[in-house]
Amino acid sequence: MATFSVPSYIPSTFEDAEQLRNAFSGWGTNEKVIISVLAHRNAMQRRHIRHAYSDAYGEDLLKALDKELNRDFEKAVLLWTLEPAERDAVLAYDSVSKWGPADSTLIEIATARSSEELLSARRAYHDRNKRSLEEDVAAHTSADFRKLLVPLLSSYRYEGAEVNLSLAESEAKLLHEKVVEKAYNDEEMIRILTTRSKPQLVATFNHYNNEFGNPINKDLKSDPKDEFLRALRAIIKCITCPEKYFEKIVRLAINKMGTDEGALTRVVATRAEVDMKLIKEAYYMRNSVPLGKAIKKDTTGDYEDFLLALIGEEDA
Amino acid sequence: MATFSVPSYIPSTFEDAEQLRNAFSGWGTNEKVIISVLAHRNAMQRRHIRHAYSDAYGEDLLKALDKELNRDFEKAVLLWTLEPAERDAVLAYDSVSKWGPADSTLIEIATARSSEELLSARRAYHDRNKRSLEEDVAAHTSADFRKLLVPLLSSYRYEGAEVNLSLAESEAKLLHEKVVEKAYNDEEMIRILTTRSKPQLVATFNHYNNEFGNPINKDLKSDPKDEFLRALRAIIKCITCPEKYFEKIVRLAINKMGTDEGALTRVVATRAEVDMKLIKEAYYMRNSVPLGKAIKKDTTGDYEDFLLALIGEEDA
Repeated sequence: MATFSVPSYIPSTFEDAEQLRNAFSGWGTNEKVIISVLAHRNAMQRRHIRHAYSDAYGEDLLKALDKELNRDFEKAVLLWTLEPAERDAVLAYDSVSKWGPADSTLIEIATARSSEELLSARRAYHDRNKRSLEEDVAAHTSADFRKLLVPLLSSYRYEGAEVNLSLAESEAKLLHEKVVEKAYNDEEMIRILTTRSKPQLVATFNHYNNEFGNPINKDLKSDPKDEFLRALRAIIKCITCPEKYFEKIVRLAINKMGTDEGALTRVVATRAEVDMKLIKEAYYMRNSVPLGKAIKKDTTGDYEDFLLALIGEEDA
Repeated sequence: MATFSVPSYIPSTFEDAEQLRNAFSGWGTNEKVIISVLAHRNAMQRRHIRHAYSDAYGEDLLKALDKELNRDFEKAVLLWTLEPAERDAVLAYDSVSKWGPADSTLIEIATARSSEELLSARRAYHDRNKRSLEEDVAAHTSADFRKLLVPLLSSYRYEGAEVNLSLAESEAKLLHEKVVEKAYNDEEMIRILTTRSKPQLVATFNHYNNEFGNPINKDLKSDPKDEFLRALRAIIKCITCPEKYFEKIVRLAINKMGTDEGALTRVVATRAEVDMKLIKEAYYMRNSVPLGKAIKKDTTGDYEDFLLALIGEEDA
């Protein structure tokens, strides 16, 4: 479900590396070439290009891009060129270093990835930071957020489709009790959200809706400004309907006074190879404007061109 | 540092599988053959034998052993024949299903393994039980033990040797404050023990000892009967000195009125290929009796022979 296009004839990784090297040389940088190569190669191809570049020129491609590019375009190209696990490690590190409750990056990494992808991100975090992700999160967060985020990021959820319906029933009841008591930070609430498998949680939330008349996320909106409640809703949305979750992140990033490029770049770079097609559909359904058009209106230059290429709307 | 011997001439895995098959056939079972094969092959060789057995006879070797053997000998052979990750998954499942605070199996699996070994155990747990380990632990434990065990088993500690000495200093102080306040279940206490790397924790405990005059484990003995304190001490001992931890488990298993075969088998099966040599040395230092002699005195028959073979004391 990748949205960017990969050409039917793909040059060898060495030719790609050479093209990039030429784009960097001489006066100025040829950004068009960088986009035409990197925005049209999948994760494995980009990894091979990075290896080929390092073999041929003795320099990490990411270092070279870092020297040649600037600002939002640079951030987007670097994030995209990283391996998915490394990218998550970079995003997690940025998020935890300047942590604030409004930033949902850690929640995305913990819940909108497969269990093995989350493990790979934790492994990449070790390699880059010489500490564990949960160690840094525990040290930089406190109170309820720590109680929630550490187990969330440490989880290794079972990924089979098996669902225990009587468990879904009893845990929906338990969640409802806690919601009624406004005991949002209750241990049981956190235990259920951070350990159960996604199919099991979906069954639990469905039962909640059937039995108590509201989707759980509606009941968790009692105080729309409460950041902890917002985090709980983000977890539930990432688990039940990630494309709608990401549609909203993109919508808010674009509709802000001054675009939130950080969030926009993060969603495009992390989802272009996953479910961007669904996010685009959800965006159009919700806003009656194609996502490509909205991005075109809100961004400029190479950054704009790069994002449009990644979401498959170069001609938008 | 494996204690059992592997013969210099090793038959092919198919010959080994055939020997086992012959040991099962006819009237009765030839336990001597089972010991002579399985107690003298390393983990990789045992895995290959299991594959060869299944290829040749269409039956899992473990199923066949289960049918042929009995009681303590059966349990020891089965546990030993499993892959290390699967073995941990089995031990963890047994422990969590009939969980009691005196059982330290989960602590051993969480702290006396490498980070990757713990992950492999969690993966094997998924495969066997269709649930995650942390999910079952969270559901079967409560209060302080849940607060401690879930993050402990979910951790993926950094394994590099880097140590931050000023962090060790500040966290030693923090631990000491909590110990003085008898706030043993304090969040910070649990955060430090469950997230920091082992070398970092060793530095922290050393600083604690230098600065406050006692090893932390001595200060955590204020109430020798308190099970939670015992768990904290077990974690610290597994991290700082696993051979002494396991020596004590074996000593208590043997010195009990009636041997605790479960604990004895667990330690021998999980450590024979890791640090049994050190455990034997620690046992002799502490008890002035060789471990082989103590096991010989306390066990009988094929079970005795099998344990002695695994610890390299067949002629004890």
